[in-house]
Amino acid sequence: MSMERKEEIKYLGQLKEWIGLNREFEIIDLFADLHPADIADLIDNLEEQEKIHLFSLLDVEKASDVIPELSDISREQILEDMSDTKLAEIIDEMDSDDAADVIAELTEEQARAVLDVIEPEESEDLKELMKYDEDSAGGIMQSELVSVLETANVRDAVNAVINISDEIENIYNVFVVNDAGVLIGTIPLQKLIIAKRNDAIIETIDKSIPSVDVDVDQEEVARMFEKYDLVALPVVDSSGHLLGRITIDDVVDVMEEETSEDLYRIAGLDEDDNIFNEPFQSIKKRLPWLYLNLLTALVSALVIGFFEDTIKMMVALAVFMPVVAGVGGNAGSQTLTLIVRGLALGEVTYENSRKALYKQTFVGIANGVAVGLVVGIIAYFWKGIPILGIVLGLAMIINIFVGTLIGTLIPLSLKWLKSDPALGSHIFVTAFTDAFGFFSFLGLAAIFIKLFT
Amino acid sequence: MSMERKEEIKYLGQLKEWIGLNREFEIIDLFADLHPADIADLIDNLEEQEKIHLFSLLDVEKASDVIPELSDISREQILEDMSDTKLAEIIDEMDSDDAADVIAELTEEQARAVLDVIEPEESEDLKELMKYDEDSAGGIMQSELVSVLETANVRDAVNAVINISDEIENIYNVFVVNDAGVLIGTIPLQKLIIAKRNDAIIETIDKSIPSVDVDVDQEEVARMFEKYDLVALPVVDSSGHLLGRITIDDVVDVMEEETSEDLYRIAGLDEDDNIFNEPFQSIKKRLPWLYLNLLTALVSALVIGFFEDTIKMMVALAVFMPVVAGVGGNAGSQTLTLIVRGLALGEVTYENSRKALYKQTFVGIANGVAVGLVVGIIAYFWKGIPILGIVLGLAMIINIFVGTLIGTLIPLSLKWLKSDPALGSHIFVTAFTDAFGFFSFLGLAAIFIKLFT
Repeated sequence: MSMERKEEIKYLGQLKEWIGLNREFEIIDLFADLHPADIADLIDNLEEQEKIHLFSLLDVEKASDVIPELSDISREQILEDMSDTKLAEIIDEMDSDDAADVIAELTEEQARAVLDVIEPEESEDLKELMKYDEDSAGGIMQSELVSVLETANVRDAVNAVINISDEIENIYNVFVVNDAGVLIGTIPLQKLIIAKRNDAIIETIDKSIPSVDVDVDQEEVARMFEKYDLVALPVVDSSGHLLGRITIDDVVDVMEEETSEDLYRIAGLDEDDNIFNEPFQSIKKRLPWLYLNLLTALVSALVIGFFEDTIKMMVALAVFMPVVAGVGGNAGSQTLTLIVRGLALGEVTYENSRKALYKQTFVGIANGVAVGLVVGIIAYFWKGIPILGIVLGLAMIINIFVGTLIGTLIPLSLKWLKSDPALGSHIFVTAFTDAFGFFSFLGLAAIFIKLFT
Repeated sequence: MSMERKEEIKYLGQLKEWIGLNREFEIIDLFADLHPADIADLIDNLEEQEKIHLFSLLDVEKASDVIPELSDISREQILEDMSDTKLAEIIDEMDSDDAADVIAELTEEQARAVLDVIEPEESEDLKELMKYDEDSAGGIMQSELVSVLETANVRDAVNAVINISDEIENIYNVFVVNDAGVLIGTIPLQKLIIAKRNDAIIETIDKSIPSVDVDVDQEEVARMFEKYDLVALPVVDSSGHLLGRITIDDVVDVMEEETSEDLYRIAGLDEDDNIFNEPFQSIKKRLPWLYLNLLTALVSALVIGFFEDTIKMMVALAVFMPVVAGVGGNAGSQTLTLIVRGLALGEVTYENSRKALYKQTFVGIANGVAVGLVVGIIAYFWKGIPILGIVLGLAMIINIFVGTLIGTLIPLSLKWLKSDPALGSHIFVTAFTDAFGFFSFLGLAAIFIKLFT
């Protein structure tokens, strides 16, 4: 059953009432009808003690479906409180990729205890999965999959699906391997249904469906799913042995994660910051970025400090200083955002980055002239000082051009240095446009005042 | 065949050489082996005339697969040049959702000509699809699907899949409807394979798989796929009649689109701006945002203008003005980004927004004190003026607090006004922190100077 927003609110009210009255049977009844994702949503909206209490009412199978859907905070609170035996039972029921993620979040002690209790075969599987970098194909793959030998026929493949269906719920393909376990090809369920039962499986396989190496970054994996419209992708080692598969639902989560990461990094935020974190955690996470920003702002202050005498001669300069810096910074942010997004989507590459730079430079000069002229005229009529109008217009042209250039170069350089192009890039771009904007504006003013007054 | 980056470069060089030598057979051979998405990538990297030439070498079926994968710019260039008959043939081959998108991009004249030429039944389908808002479930659904009556058995459903497999490549589910066409349930292919051929289909259906109303926004659709780990979702009208289906590959595209939209709107960019647009288009698209920013910057200038006399008395104020404004703006951007993202992911809701506001307020005050103390001390030691240190520290505390508050309130208010919470919100937040930062800093300075000197 899917829940509309209104229903969710109604359920939440009902649930809180039942918790108050200790009506556990009604709660268990309600949970029996709900999708695990909806149960997780309800639990996420409760207080810590209520969360732990309600979660304890779920049977092992339901609990194993709900855990991956919980918010990070709820999951942490609930796992912390759980006995090792109960935890092991639940993890035993989970898909291997989700299980490995949960174990990775436990304390080392808890993790070892759990791995000791669950079935040895599954425990080996999990230890294997946990070796891979969590941001790689290996980190998001699961070991549950259906595979048959290349000598099998279609009937064997159908039987393989039937036999494993109790354990795996989301089968989209059967993978075909040789004796050595090397991936030969993939057959989607649709093709399996169409094929004659006695056909050799090797005749029906789709060799064009790609596979991915276990070490490839998850962002690259997401791009493959997007490009080739995939629902499942086999993962292989460097010799082509089939290790696991990645399904689209995990990729969707990766995409959301990478999007948050990009947005946060542009703004100068820690990737695990969250609206509902503990306030002191948020304070601690944001403060270093604010101090970094303070540092860059003090560089600007230093630049202005050079020109105190100039400002004393013409206080109107102080009035327009922030205009030069602000609009230049905005032009830089615009370009920065386009480049960061283009890099994330794979549209901007090493080959075409030069073309991008030329184009942005041209756009920067044109927009600089368009804004510079207007602001110069406004300043002249406002303050009646011709020099001010000219200097402001010129500085604006220069700073919008510089902002656009820097907004292009910073993310490209970070990428070239194999760092994340989005990392705090907004702070660096505005640091540059601020300092340079003040320098060009006040510097030009100092020269013009010296020459013409 | 999947293409690695290096291979793509090799192919591109090869392709350009062959184009120069007019070796059409080699090119056709190469294209025969490549995935449509890879062909689209290669074409995207060519000059306009080469694009049109190479595309004309594709047969109708391949062409229909390549068109949806092309970049917007390439597609526009290629479609503009194509004859109505060729276009109609290609569109006839496409999935209805892609076909409707392509027709929507044509001139009215071209569109009418194409709809007249293609099969009447398909033409009706397309006209039907094109009625829906392009950002709604109806706008991204396709009419191609497999459905059987509730009186059917599993064998009928299997036969339905077999019969339609020539036309539809990505079948994941069979939908079950009653006489009136109302959706009763869904059965995934995996379950179809497991079930006995003589079982009634009604016994095997999964009633818990959700459906979506045709008018629901695509962002909401994407959230449903994410929450319930779906690969296909039936679309129904208000009386429950099955109209079409949405598949995960389209949802992945929606997610990328919505992410770009959020990022662009925060930065003050048009959603269809792109690194490789025509320069004059980019200039035209970005200029209004820069002028808007100029306007808000002039408001700040106006605020500073009030205090020209105060600045004349203590020029050091001009030096630290941008520090107050900049760091406050950064604190605002951090909060803004968290709220916009939280709203997009459905984590921030009407009910918990008050909690979010209280928390952000607390974080704002704490970070304000942490940064304000440091900057006050620095200013005192740098300039040796006690008043400057005190005023700067106080103004910084106030402005970081205000930035955090405004960064929370602006996106929440936009959401409450049913507008996009991300729309130009960065410009508005910094406009506020700039103006307010200057006002509090210079205003406090004016008061302190009056009182203590």
